[in-house]
Amino acid sequence: MAQDVYTVIGKRLPRLESEEKVSGTARYLPDLQIPGTLYGKILRSPYPHARVLRVDTSRAERLPGVRAAVTGNDTKGIRLCTFSRFDNKPPLAEERVRFIGDEVAAVAADSESIAEEALDLIEVDYEELPPVFDPLEAMKPGAVGIHEEGNVAYHRSWMYGDIESALKESDYIFEDQFRTQAQAHCALETHGCIAYFDQTGTLTVWITTQWIHPTRRILSETLGLPYSKVRVITANIGGSFGRSGGIEPIEIIATFLSKKTRRPVRIIHSHDEQFTSGRSRYPVLIDIKTGVKKDGTLLARKVRMVTDNGAYNNFGIAVTLGIGSKCTYLWGVPNVAFDADVVYTNKVYGGAFRGFGNGQITFAIESQMETIARKLGMDMKDLCLKNVNYPGQRTCMGHKITSCGLKECIEQATAAAGWEAKRGKGRNRGIGMASVMHIGAGIRNLYGDCNLSEAFIKMNNDGTIDLASGAMDTGQGSNTVLAQVAAEELGIPMRDINMITGDTSTTPQCLGAWGSREAFIAGNAVKLAAREVRLRLLEEAGKIIKSDPEDLILKDRQIYRKTNLQESVLSIAHVANACYNAGRPLFGRGIYDDPSGLGIDPKTGHGGPVTYSFGTQVAEVEVDPRTGKVKVLNFVAAHDLGKALNAMMAEGQIEGGVIQGLGYALFEDLVMEEGLVLNPNLQDYRIPYVNDIPKIVSILVESQDPEGPYGAKGLGEPPIIPTAAAIANAIYDAVGVRIKTLPITPEKILKALKEKEEGSKKK
Amino acid sequence: MAQDVYTVIGKRLPRLESEEKVSGTARYLPDLQIPGTLYGKILRSPYPHARVLRVDTSRAERLPGVRAAVTGNDTKGIRLCTFSRFDNKPPLAEERVRFIGDEVAAVAADSESIAEEALDLIEVDYEELPPVFDPLEAMKPGAVGIHEEGNVAYHRSWMYGDIESALKESDYIFEDQFRTQAQAHCALETHGCIAYFDQTGTLTVWITTQWIHPTRRILSETLGLPYSKVRVITANIGGSFGRSGGIEPIEIIATFLSKKTRRPVRIIHSHDEQFTSGRSRYPVLIDIKTGVKKDGTLLARKVRMVTDNGAYNNFGIAVTLGIGSKCTYLWGVPNVAFDADVVYTNKVYGGAFRGFGNGQITFAIESQMETIARKLGMDMKDLCLKNVNYPGQRTCMGHKITSCGLKECIEQATAAAGWEAKRGKGRNRGIGMASVMHIGAGIRNLYGDCNLSEAFIKMNNDGTIDLASGAMDTGQGSNTVLAQVAAEELGIPMRDINMITGDTSTTPQCLGAWGSREAFIAGNAVKLAAREVRLRLLEEAGKIIKSDPEDLILKDRQIYRKTNLQESVLSIAHVANACYNAGRPLFGRGIYDDPSGLGIDPKTGHGGPVTYSFGTQVAEVEVDPRTGKVKVLNFVAAHDLGKALNAMMAEGQIEGGVIQGLGYALFEDLVMEEGLVLNPNLQDYRIPYVNDIPKIVSILVESQDPEGPYGAKGLGEPPIIPTAAAIANAIYDAVGVRIKTLPITPEKILKALKEKEEGSKKK
Repeated sequence: MAQDVYTVIGKRLPRLESEEKVSGTARYLPDLQIPGTLYGKILRSPYPHARVLRVDTSRAERLPGVRAAVTGNDTKGIRLCTFSRFDNKPPLAEERVRFIGDEVAAVAADSESIAEEALDLIEVDYEELPPVFDPLEAMKPGAVGIHEEGNVAYHRSWMYGDIESALKESDYIFEDQFRTQAQAHCALETHGCIAYFDQTGTLTVWITTQWIHPTRRILSETLGLPYSKVRVITANIGGSFGRSGGIEPIEIIATFLSKKTRRPVRIIHSHDEQFTSGRSRYPVLIDIKTGVKKDGTLLARKVRMVTDNGAYNNFGIAVTLGIGSKCTYLWGVPNVAFDADVVYTNKVYGGAFRGFGNGQITFAIESQMETIARKLGMDMKDLCLKNVNYPGQRTCMGHKITSCGLKECIEQATAAAGWEAKRGKGRNRGIGMASVMHIGAGIRNLYGDCNLSEAFIKMNNDGTIDLASGAMDTGQGSNTVLAQVAAEELGIPMRDINMITGDTSTTPQCLGAWGSREAFIAGNAVKLAAREVRLRLLEEAGKIIKSDPEDLILKDRQIYRKTNLQESVLSIAHVANACYNAGRPLFGRGIYDDPSGLGIDPKTGHGGPVTYSFGTQVAEVEVDPRTGKVKVLNFVAAHDLGKALNAMMAEGQIEGGVIQGLGYALFEDLVMEEGLVLNPNLQDYRIPYVNDIPKIVSILVESQDPEGPYGAKGLGEPPIIPTAAAIANAIYDAVGVRIKTLPITPEKILKALKEKEEGSKKK
Repeated sequence: MAQDVYTVIGKRLPRLESEEKVSGTARYLPDLQIPGTLYGKILRSPYPHARVLRVDTSRAERLPGVRAAVTGNDTKGIRLCTFSRFDNKPPLAEERVRFIGDEVAAVAADSESIAEEALDLIEVDYEELPPVFDPLEAMKPGAVGIHEEGNVAYHRSWMYGDIESALKESDYIFEDQFRTQAQAHCALETHGCIAYFDQTGTLTVWITTQWIHPTRRILSETLGLPYSKVRVITANIGGSFGRSGGIEPIEIIATFLSKKTRRPVRIIHSHDEQFTSGRSRYPVLIDIKTGVKKDGTLLARKVRMVTDNGAYNNFGIAVTLGIGSKCTYLWGVPNVAFDADVVYTNKVYGGAFRGFGNGQITFAIESQMETIARKLGMDMKDLCLKNVNYPGQRTCMGHKITSCGLKECIEQATAAAGWEAKRGKGRNRGIGMASVMHIGAGIRNLYGDCNLSEAFIKMNNDGTIDLASGAMDTGQGSNTVLAQVAAEELGIPMRDINMITGDTSTTPQCLGAWGSREAFIAGNAVKLAAREVRLRLLEEAGKIIKSDPEDLILKDRQIYRKTNLQESVLSIAHVANACYNAGRPLFGRGIYDDPSGLGIDPKTGHGGPVTYSFGTQVAEVEVDPRTGKVKVLNFVAAHDLGKALNAMMAEGQIEGGVIQGLGYALFEDLVMEEGLVLNPNLQDYRIPYVNDIPKIVSILVESQDPEGPYGAKGLGEPPIIPTAAAIANAIYDAVGVRIKTLPITPEKILKALKEKEEGSKKK
């Protein structure tokens, strides 16, 4: 790796906002104080399924301090937009409620306590309807219909290659069923917004979002306002993990309350609401059938799945289609068939979650891979290497892999974990591995037909810059990485960069933080903008000192001749100031649009991702056979991120992903009984505690992506994806039981151990 | 005037923010709520002149709720920057205080009342020094020295042409002495700031300023911070009139208090402080000697003046030099000599004020013109027309006039006022006129060597735009005018424009609101940016419909073929969205730099203004000879503004200027006795009341400036400039007395009437 050619790129730099966050002075949405703000509260359905006969807010509106109330009558016809024609969630119930927590009415008042009190004065007449909670039940003929169109929100079936022939050619066929649970994002800051529909008819929404520009588009199109009258602003964001793509009902509700009062209206989810109002990770049921040759060559993969959509469409269809693509990714299986139903139930609806379905399908694929390896008498590692993805590979779906360091990830992760030495040693200790292939730079078609980011750089008279990007730093550190890119290109220190983000009015287009796209897409945009400034700067410097700009370089705020790096010829500030005085201040604009097409689907014509990220994780666990308790002892995660723009932050992403994946594997579960969430708080909803977290060794594999900035590609999502399978495989290695449903609780292990014991006794 | 070729330009449109202002929801600086804010208060000198022996803040700092205190020790060496090497005002006194109100120490506390209380606990030992209040006294040898260098801050003397020969050639020589007073800006919002030096070392200053970008430069250079660490933000501004160019001590004081506490610190002037802390209009003493031929041809003008600088340099030298230039402007006198002293006194120091000295010198020139006309037996109107400035004229100083509608102003103002019919009719009624020539687009060299503005336009997917400009709307309406320019160029309604201004981070360079420059300079920048977007838009549309872009036009959000204006071929939104989807969102950047040089001073090499604005005002008054009270009955103001971009707003500028000029003429006076301001509030400081304001007829003369946007040039300052002379001349016409000192109080009129009576008795 040619790491030392860079001055700022690749360095272990702290985040720009670290000091503010550590000192407690960083501002989050709840810290914002907009004069005249009212407080909104929402009345929610206590029933999982009911007809709404009457909503009467008149008593509530008469309570002193209450300024307005809204019901489904006010927002009639509006559906929460995810850029899909299937969107069907009204911000406030119209004729029916479909889950416990469904929004029915809302008030805005002078204080939170008045608003809370007012909710009790809203009269609602419900007519209860029979609910259905299990997606398989919901699919049965005669099941109660949750939506007009029936309970199957979407069905999709396709095949690449010839699955039946491939299964026939296979020496072995494996069939397994896996089930995953609803996981909550558990960002420490709950979702909130302040909406202000001012006297000029301009709507400003302060919001916790991952996407400012798409949110502006959503609000504009949903409310019939020109973009010029919609401004979306964020503060620091206390974590996101997919939960803040698109809008929640609160943004629409707050807007309508503000429209009535012409005052800013603030609604912030309580933790209870955060767990119960929607958009957790989709639970899925996956049947996976795999055909393999004796030598371990994977020939066929057939996936049948049911997605538990919950009460409304959000990203359920997109996630399911994403899983469909991802079936074809890992290990490059040449023949793949996919069949899926997305099914309504009277439960909290799902939403986007870090990995966007890949965590679910990878749990299935990689758990089954272990079973295959053992059956074939191969080491899992060898089976993986046998089928490993490689640069230049084209998947059966037509997606093309460019850079690929998966082989290195497998080798380095297993080496670091002591794979050979620890494998199959028994004594309730075990080691397991799992890998991931994921999109490395988002994908086209969130809306329209591009996957772009734009950046503006103004150079100030003193050679420092203002860098505007529409990318969103949701806590993952994109601002720091983008500043590093600009610093590298312009030969200036990080301190000289003023990052402008988080406001649609003042930043150029960008689709925001999703699909692990920001380092790659926004990074490339910033690089192009900075290069434009650099070229102009060198050109102007060349004029001043009568030199070919090609012979000059920028370093440490100075301009040097390449032939003499000891003595600078001009300062950048000097040139910047001269350009200003000459009436041509320095400015650069960069637009980067994913060139895609690389992986165009020949059938649909849809572009595939421009690049993919890879990784292999190895978990070492100890299982207590008396309690069923799993302790993760050691963890190694090797990830191909193309190039580490900031190794410290990359390690942070890996560690965070692994911990969240560990929670998914062992603890987290949004438990619902008859549609009621039983654990809607951080005490009962169990995330990993400090004691649960092993030492995590992060290995950064740099495959140098040909299209990524400095070779980088996305790392936001991959680290959470293979963790559950790695742990499940390690458990199998430790105690010989295969748990196919998440989370892998002590009860499930004890039960499996008992069954295993009984089975062996029978023999 | 080819007015109807435009769709938006020239229309009488309300301001973008009217509804917010009228409904009381517009946000001003005091409305901003920054979490954790502390309140700062300043201890000021009670003495006009004293040595500061000791400042002890320790008792104040021990008061519960006080978070920090600062003194001159903290800010040592800092001087308030006006981009002049003569700047010498420390934000907090170092060894001496020089006027009553001079800043000595400051505290930041949890509340305003605690801060107030803490001031009483600060101990200061002063050693009183003899003060000097009169500039003529201060110039005398042996006068007590206010600054090290003596009491003459600056002396300047120059001559263009041959003044002595010209005086010899003259048939008549007129010599008069005029004196003007200190006028307060009386913006309804006092000056304030919130400074926050955060954990990342970034200084954000929310401020009432006319110049965000120069203020960023000042703060950056003064505090030794890179520009990237300084952000200047404004809210709505409740009037400015020159008072908010550059910074006040409070910005530096609040910054240092914030640096100590790492919390935002807010300091807002009380009305008392606003009147007493500095930067009112400079009082001057003008001796003017004019040589004239019998036929009225003006041959020579010799001006000797003394500027009462007050205790420190602010814009006193610049204003004095401005007056020097302006001596050569009006009536194009071929031989002009100028000699001036800027003199310190132990009084509130002056600052920039709408007109920047032109109000003072025009009062002298135009009062004397009347005297000349009467002496020559000419009508003032004819004398003016005889010497009228004209397009293509080059002044003796080398400045070149391009567009000039002064002749039309004289003719139209006098016609509308019924000049001939009302002139010299006696019965204590009179009519008087006065004219103005002023810079119409600022001037180069505020700092560096340019007079530029830059604008960015992002076109959104729906064809609406975000328009970023560094221009400052201080209440004069520049945002509305800039939006009109963009709307005109792009064929979109005003509603489709989102104006981004008032923040250095998010707007491009602009020198801000001063010198009547924004319509012209920033307007041209916006026009260029919009044109770039338009060209790109037409080019893309041409590709879509296979047409030459030259054959297409933009109108009403649509694209039409020039040959068929009935049926649109595409919507702008369609093209904008297509460009976005194609990965090239529409964007335009405009930079306009005053081409100057047109009026380069051959001696100094300094550029003169790129254009000039003109005007003529006619006042009709009634004087009560028993009380001396003047009632302005009617007022006509004809102003050459090149082209009215928004006639309603132009009339607003004229009316506002005339009213402020009427106050200057008759009422306003910051009265000081032994350095103490006696009327530091809006009750005692008399501005015009509704009853004092006559009907004002505004006439817009459109001379079509060749360089201005759509022919426009500046109108911000001119309307205040000739008002006092017009009223003084009308008073002469009414009762035959010439008052040469402002304001023209009843006492002065009575005294003059008495003297006149005595004089005529003597005869």
